[in-house]
Amino acid sequence: DFKAALDEVPPAFGISEDELQQCVQNHLLRFDERVQYCPYQKILEDGKLYVEQVEHSTRTQVVSLLIHGAANTGKTALAATIAMDSNFPFVKLISPEAMIGFNESGKINQINKIFNDAYKSPLSVIVLDNIERLVDWVGLGPRFSNTVLQALLVLVKRKPPKNRRLLIIATTSQRQMLEAMGLDSAFDDEIEAPLITRVDTIGFVLQQLDLFNDSEREMALYQLHQSNVDRNFEIGIKKLLMVAEVASQSKESKVAKFVESIKSCMIARPNYHAQTKALEM
Amino acid sequence: DFKAALDEVPPAFGISEDELQQCVQNHLLRFDERVQYCPYQKILEDGKLYVEQVEHSTRTQVVSLLIHGAANTGKTALAATIAMDSNFPFVKLISPEAMIGFNESGKINQINKIFNDAYKSPLSVIVLDNIERLVDWVGLGPRFSNTVLQALLVLVKRKPPKNRRLLIIATTSQRQMLEAMGLDSAFDDEIEAPLITRVDTIGFVLQQLDLFNDSEREMALYQLHQSNVDRNFEIGIKKLLMVAEVASQSKESKVAKFVESIKSCMIARPNYHAQTKALEM
Amino acid sequence: DFKAALDEVPPAFGISEDELQQCVQNHLLRFDERVQYCPYQKILEDGKLYVEQVEHSTRTQVVSLLIHGAANTGKTALAATIAMDSNFPFVKLISPEAMIGFNESGKINQINKIFNDAYKSPLSVIVLDNIERLVDWVGLGPRFSNTVLQALLVLVKRKPPKNRRLLIIATTSQRQMLEAMGLDSAFDDEIEAPLITRVDTIGFVLQQLDLFNDSEREMALYQLHQSNVDRNFEIGIKKLLMVAEVASQSKESKVAKFVESIKSCMIARPNYHAQTKALEM
Amino acid sequence: DFKAALDEVPPAFGISEDELQQCVQNHLLRFDERVQYCPYQKILEDGKLYVEQVEHSTRTQVVSLLIHGAANTGKTALAATIAMDSNFPFVKLISPEAMIGFNESGKINQINKIFNDAYKSPLSVIVLDNIERLVDWVGLGPRFSNTVLQALLVLVKRKPPKNRRLLIIATTSQRQMLEAMGLDSAFDDEIEAPLITRVDTIGFVLQQLDLFNDSEREMALYQLHQSNVDRNFEIGIKKLLMVAEVASQSKESKVAKFVESIKSCMIARPNYHAQTKALEM
Amino acid sequence: DFKAALDEVPPAFGISEDELQQCVQNHLLRFDERVQYCPYQKILEDGKLYVEQVEHSTRTQVVSLLIHGAANTGKTALAATIAMDSNFPFVKLISPEAMIGFNESGKINQINKIFNDAYKSPLSVIVLDNIERLVDWVGLGPRFSNTVLQALLVLVKRKPPKNRRLLIIATTSQRQMLEAMGLDSAFDDEIEAPLITRVDTIGFVLQQLDLFNDSEREMALYQLHQSNVDRNFEIGIKKLLMVAEVASQSKESKVAKFVESIKSCMIARPNYHAQTKALEM
Amino acid sequence: DFKAALDEVPPAFGISEDELQQCVQNHLLRFDERVQYCPYQKILEDGKLYVEQVEHSTRTQVVSLLIHGAANTGKTALAATIAMDSNFPFVKLISPEAMIGFNESGKINQINKIFNDAYKSPLSVIVLDNIERLVDWVGLGPRFSNTVLQALLVLVKRKPPKNRRLLIIATTSQRQMLEAMGLDSAFDDEIEAPLITRVDTIGFVLQQLDLFNDSEREMALYQLHQSNVDRNFEIGIKKLLMVAEVASQSKESKVAKFVESIKSCMIARPNYHAQTKALEM
Ligand SMILES: Nc1ncnc2c1ncn2[C@@H]1O[C@H](COP(=O)(O)OP(=O)(O)OP(=O)(O)O)[C@@H](O)[C@H]1O
Ligand SMILES: Nc1ncnc2c1ncn2[C@@H]1O[C@H](COP(=O)(O)OP(=O)(O)OP(=O)(O)O)[C@@H](O)[C@H]1O
Ligand SMILES: Nc1ncnc2c1ncn2[C@@H]1O[C@H](COP(=O)(O)OP(=O)(O)OP(=O)(O)O)[C@@H](O)[C@H]1O
Ligand SMILES: Nc1ncnc2c1ncn2[C@@H]1O[C@H](COP(=O)(O)OP(=O)(O)OP(=O)(O)O)[C@@H](O)[C@H]1O
Ligand SMILES: Nc1ncnc2c1ncn2[C@@H]1O[C@H](COP(=O)(O)OP(=O)(O)OP(=O)(O)O)[C@@H](O)[C@H]1O
Ligand SMILES: Nc1ncnc2c1ncn2[C@@H]1O[C@H](COP(=O)(O)OP(=O)(O)OP(=O)(O)O)[C@@H](O)[C@H]1O
Ligand SMILES: [Mg+2]
Ligand SMILES: [Mg+2]
Ligand SMILES: [Mg+2]
Ligand SMILES: [Mg+2]
Ligand SMILES: [Mg+2]
Ligand SMILES: [Mg+2]
Repeated sequence: DFKAALDEVPPAFGISEDELQQCVQNHLLRFDERVQYCPYQKILEDGKLYVEQVEHSTRTQVVSLLIHGAANTGKTALAATIAMDSNFPFVKLISPEAMIGFNESGKINQINKIFNDAYKSPLSVIVLDNIERLVDWVGLGPRFSNTVLQALLVLVKRKPPKNRRLLIIATTSQRQMLEAMGLDSAFDDEIEAPLITRVDTIGFVLQQLDLFNDSEREMALYQLHQSNVDRNFEIGIKKLLMVAEVASQSKESKVAKFVESIKSCMIARPNYHAQTKALEM
Repeated sequence: DFKAALDEVPPAFGISEDELQQCVQNHLLRFDERVQYCPYQKILEDGKLYVEQVEHSTRTQVVSLLIHGAANTGKTALAATIAMDSNFPFVKLISPEAMIGFNESGKINQINKIFNDAYKSPLSVIVLDNIERLVDWVGLGPRFSNTVLQALLVLVKRKPPKNRRLLIIATTSQRQMLEAMGLDSAFDDEIEAPLITRVDTIGFVLQQLDLFNDSEREMALYQLHQSNVDRNFEIGIKKLLMVAEVASQSKESKVAKFVESIKSCMIARPNYHAQTKALEM
Repeated sequence: DFKAALDEVPPAFGISEDELQQCVQNHLLRFDERVQYCPYQKILEDGKLYVEQVEHSTRTQVVSLLIHGAANTGKTALAATIAMDSNFPFVKLISPEAMIGFNESGKINQINKIFNDAYKSPLSVIVLDNIERLVDWVGLGPRFSNTVLQALLVLVKRKPPKNRRLLIIATTSQRQMLEAMGLDSAFDDEIEAPLITRVDTIGFVLQQLDLFNDSEREMALYQLHQSNVDRNFEIGIKKLLMVAEVASQSKESKVAKFVESIKSCMIARPNYHAQTKALEM
Repeated sequence: DFKAALDEVPPAFGISEDELQQCVQNHLLRFDERVQYCPYQKILEDGKLYVEQVEHSTRTQVVSLLIHGAANTGKTALAATIAMDSNFPFVKLISPEAMIGFNESGKINQINKIFNDAYKSPLSVIVLDNIERLVDWVGLGPRFSNTVLQALLVLVKRKPPKNRRLLIIATTSQRQMLEAMGLDSAFDDEIEAPLITRVDTIGFVLQQLDLFNDSEREMALYQLHQSNVDRNFEIGIKKLLMVAEVASQSKESKVAKFVESIKSCMIARPNYHAQTKALEM
Repeated sequence: DFKAALDEVPPAFGISEDELQQCVQNHLLRFDERVQYCPYQKILEDGKLYVEQVEHSTRTQVVSLLIHGAANTGKTALAATIAMDSNFPFVKLISPEAMIGFNESGKINQINKIFNDAYKSPLSVIVLDNIERLVDWVGLGPRFSNTVLQALLVLVKRKPPKNRRLLIIATTSQRQMLEAMGLDSAFDDEIEAPLITRVDTIGFVLQQLDLFNDSEREMALYQLHQSNVDRNFEIGIKKLLMVAEVASQSKESKVAKFVESIKSCMIARPNYHAQTKALEM
Repeated sequence: DFKAALDEVPPAFGISEDELQQCVQNHLLRFDERVQYCPYQKILEDGKLYVEQVEHSTRTQVVSLLIHGAANTGKTALAATIAMDSNFPFVKLISPEAMIGFNESGKINQINKIFNDAYKSPLSVIVLDNIERLVDWVGLGPRFSNTVLQALLVLVKRKPPKNRRLLIIATTSQRQMLEAMGLDSAFDDEIEAPLITRVDTIGFVLQQLDLFNDSEREMALYQLHQSNVDRNFEIGIKKLLMVAEVASQSKESKVAKFVESIKSCMIARPNYHAQTKALEM
């Protein structure tokens, strides 16, 4: 009946492709080696290594990876890209967006089902997006669904049946929450998605978008440098893309508006020069 | 079947118009530029900008706006006005008043349904009125419905399907609660609805109502200035309108009653002169 | 179908009259102007003003009034009297006594139904008696029904449909609880029902009851004055009426028993002379 | 249909007599005036006064009495005796013993039903035995059934319909719990059932039992006086009766055993002479 | 119908004998008077006294006894022995082992049923084994089933019907928990099951088992005395029996293994000589 | 019907063999006596002793063993190996992996059923894997399923019926949690699974794997010794096996990658030399 089981598996990749594709709208921007402190490319390469490990290993049947980072840092897009690029026959996204209004056991059933489906394919990737939402986490209390948490704690470590191999990629913006729950030690490795903190990186991003022309971009960068913004702000890539687009909407004051938005992301800190040097050099 | 889906959408605007209209009874008063510290007009203009952004943007499919402020400051009226003025084909109010006695999953189903309906229209506005009531918040404890909160946390950030765009306007008088819940960072921008703190503004309001004649109004303003009330009281626009009407009810002592009511809104503060200058200049 | 809706409304006044009448057994005692620090009459007059406001206003469709005070101070009787004297076509009492054993949603359904019935009548009064019991409040914990609380928070502020006007009168002996719950700011105005603290007021009350003859009453007052009781005790009107009746039961020692009961209501306080003067003059 | 309602009332007295009778097994011992600091007789007389008040009053329709005291002090027996001696047509015991395994709403329904039955009889007594058990109180937490508590809070104060009068007698050994719950202020009066603290009272009790002969009793009292036990122990009447019977079981060492048991009830206190004098004289 | 009721009673003794018998596997060891500080025999005699009291008393219908002590001290065996030796027609064990997976009301129903069955027999014994497990106690929190607790609080004190008499024997290793719950004062008397703390007692026990021959036993005692173990260890009888058997399993190193096990039960305490003398002499 | 019962027992060993086998993938590595501070072999031998005790004892019917230790230390593999090597007719694994999405009573029923099945076989082993997951433990709160805990507390100590003997082996990485729950004292003995802290042990492990050739292994050990890693790191055997395999994946930098991974397991500690000597010698 093993064959029968295999036949049962729906053409899973096809099914999830849409969902995953939507997480990476407008394709990822490529950050070359010059933007070393913003290592999106490195994250994708590390992901590739884990994909290969799962593919070729004879002993390790399950590998789990945690991508964490502040809000809007591109975690979901990175996880989805690694998953899609694996070309494994089974690739599936588990996302809170698809489970609104599910009760705890409804969620667990669906999650468990996806894992069991994955066990039927020789090679699989499961993306657990936004696990703080999957476990209904809120810092006030704190409160969370212990039932879903316990299921995840077991599922992330559960060995697939013989000859089945599985890569799990989870994302979260609540790294410290996972620790409080003992969920962090369930993962084999962790990768941090970076915040953008340099004006140079902004320039790099604007260059790849067709929203500002060259002179506009240079004007913006100049003004930002003048305002002592460099290494003194924090912004996620998703927010940066939005801010750029909102600004480009207003025909007359594009540059001014953009600069103002970036400035509103500055972080108050005493003698930041010393600090940021320590952090970013 | 996309067309079919579109047809399914009920003539939503017509349906919600009544509800929204009722939030803005007796039309909004216009505050011209002279009343700069009471920026209702500016809020409406900012709202218009976001409406346009949603209308014209090619990348950003969902924009979310939070209008917060003390009780009675006109939050609901402002949100409803922005929504109605958008002229989008789908405009809908999600209000706790329509969900009394619903249990948690009943609420979530209804909220989720409205979002899904919105995803069927190319351009939509959803007003989430009084979100502290939607999540059953009470400061004592504190207690709230985590289930509804989690649904909102996901829905406010969820991307609509391709070619669908959505503006979300939420209102709350519990800004600090949202922060404790991590709901604040789900919004793209925030606007504060102002309290009225100047006698001049009161004069401006009375002028537009037909409750006091000129001499009565001037008498009232004179007495208020005399009593050192200026910049030393706080009142929301909704309360001001009510206070004016209650006073106008009593034929003989209109002015006295009105002045007394305003005085009861004075706030005790030590050496307030310095303070209010800092705050309002 | 508006007419049909109107016809649906049961002859509500007739229905609730019994219930309300029972709250004011043996009619209220009249306190004339001489008893100024015991302002029952003033409360009834203030209530009348709000009744008129609701009747004549063109903008304000809902007015809510909170009568609070210590136990036994006549809150329910005052609220019921104002409601009955309004002569509005819809007058209804919402009382915990009629909801014993109801679960939370049962309560909310009944309360919501009464509000919806009221919205069908052009002019209505709803008395929310003992709201601390409606929300199942107990100080130990504290515990309360958040579901009922949330419904009240919305209902007290909800605007009736066009051309419908509603006066809400709530009573509570837990003023500070409402504050903790944020329910106090939902009311447009508050009135405090007074405790009786003067021997003169007791004399005034005894005079209107037919339980003591003149010499008995004077004897009682004389003994109370002698015992330095004046302004040094606290008693609610309901308890005073009961104490008087219990004492009058014993044929021989009427006066002694009555004086003893009042004395047991004395409150221990250091140098009370100064204090009570400040409070009552 | 009033007559019909009256006919509906089951012959209630007959029904509860058994239950109540069982609470007062072996009839109460009579304590004459000499045993003034052990005022069982006075409690019964006070109870009689309240019975009369309910019977004759024209205004007060419901009177509620709380009998509290340490464990084993005879509270239930006293309440049952007052109730049975009233000769009211409706006398009913509400006891946790009859509600084991009931859930909250089952309890409330039964309690509420008994109150409603009582309202059908012109004169009624309801004994609420052991209210700390009715509300499932446990000091650890503390925990209790708020639902039952809320029902009691309302029922104890609820006015019966016209021409119906009701006496409520409640017992508890957790006086301070009632206060924490705000249930104490729901009662019109309180009576404390006493602990026995004098050797003389023990003698008085032994005299009325046929367990010890005269010389045995005197021997026991002599030994107790010798051991400096007087006013230095605390024992409830129920425990005293049990201790006496257990001792009388052993043929040879009756007196020794009895004295030993009483001694085990001594309470450690520093310079107790002064203290007990203050308490009992 | 009394007879009928009696007939209903199942041949209860027969039913529970198996269960009870299993609690006392391999019969109890007899500790004669020389082992005075290990008073198993005295406990059994005290139990016999209570059995007689219940049998002969005319007033006391229910007597309740609590056997508490550390884990493995023989509590269950002692309670079961007293119960079986009573020769009462109804003897029943209420044990958590028979209620695994029951919910709260399932437990209460079963417990209540056993009490009601007991009330049908003129003389009964009920053993409530391990009440901390019956109420689902865990120190972390702490948490427990308040519903079961409340049922026990009432059942242990409930008077049987006329001419029915009942002995209740409860066991627990959480004496302090009962106090926190107010359950301790529900019992008429308490007995403590002892820990073994003397090497002599060990010798006494080994003598009665056929696991060690005389020279082995003496060797073991000698080594224990040498190691300064005496009065410096604590072990329950159940554990001692197990330790002896485990050691006797290993053919070669019987004595060494046994001595080692006892040593692992030593308790760290400063200047224990003084202390233990105070405790055991 | 005893025979019938026996027949009912499914050929249990066969059933669980797969599951258990999977816990010990690629057979256990043998650690000979030279690796004394890494006592896997000793644990297996101790386990064998308990197996024999259960097999031969006449009194002790149930023996329970707890294997605890940090994550990845081989607890499950050790427990499964002891169980399989017993050759008892009934060997069964109770694991959270098989109970995902079960509610509390579902879990208890399944666990209870396995115990009851075991009672039908003369000799049985039950492995309770990962009991912190069975009771849904999370340190945040902390929270756990008290219902499952209570069932375990009873089941682990429950005596099988006559002539039935049972060995229980539980594993946990939350030793301190068991203590907080009072579950530790339910076990008859405890064994700690060790962390690897010496470079020599790593060498020993690498030698038995076919991932590194001799020169690679020696290079790695040399580099580790150079880096002062010895006795200054902690790694579980499971993690060590994975790290070795991941490193061996990369063809070129096998040794470098391996050394880097081990280094990331170093623990920061002040003057560790003294400490580790104390711990490991
Ligand atoms: N190199 C890149 N890496 C990641 N994202 C990129 C990159 N270039 C462009 N993007 C875009 O940035 C956006 C990142 O959004 P994404 O939802 O992945 O962020 P997130 O960290 O998951 O946000 P959240 O905290 O809300 O979950 C996507 O729209 C993606 O297409
Ligand atoms: N310029 C204005 N801006 C806002 N509201 C106005 C303005 N002029 C008049 N109003 C009136 O003020 C009232 C504002 O009430 P609204 O319910 O919007 O306040 P709110 O802040 O939502 O109150 P709440 O805190 O109770 O939710 C409305 O009746 C509206 O018609
Ligand atoms: N002037 C008066 N104002 C109020 N009550 C009066 C007055 N004169 C007489 N009474 C009587 O006093 C009693 C007041 O009782 P009521 O139940 O209203 O008090 P309450 O404050 O609601 O008590 P509770 O705190 O128990 O709710 C009524 O019986 C009423 O008839
Ligand atoms: N004068 C007396 N007053 C009260 N009880 C008496 C008196 N004389 C004898 N008794 C007997 O004392 C016993 C009192 O027991 P009762 O159950 O009433 O005490 P209790 O305070 O209710 O106990 P608990 O705290 O357990 O509820 C009864 O058996 C009663 O017959
Ligand atoms: N004199 C004795 N008194 C008590 N138990 C004895 C005695 N002699 C031998 N035993 C044996 O000691 C064992 C005591 O175990 P028992 O289960 O009663 O202890 P327990 O205190 O109830 O343990 P737990 O704390 O686990 O409930 C029984 O097997 C019993 O047969
Ligand atoms: N001597 C050994 N002892 C234990 N495990 C060994 C040994 N040699 C090799 N192994 C392997 O090490 C791995 C131990 O993993 P196992 O799941 O038992 O660890 P664990 O402590 O239960 O982990 P977790 O904390 O996640 O429950 C198994 O794959 C086992 O085959
Ligand atoms: Mg994301
Ligand atoms: Mg609003
Ligand atoms: Mg009232
Ligand atoms: Mg009692
Ligand atoms: Mg036991
Ligand atoms: Mg394991």
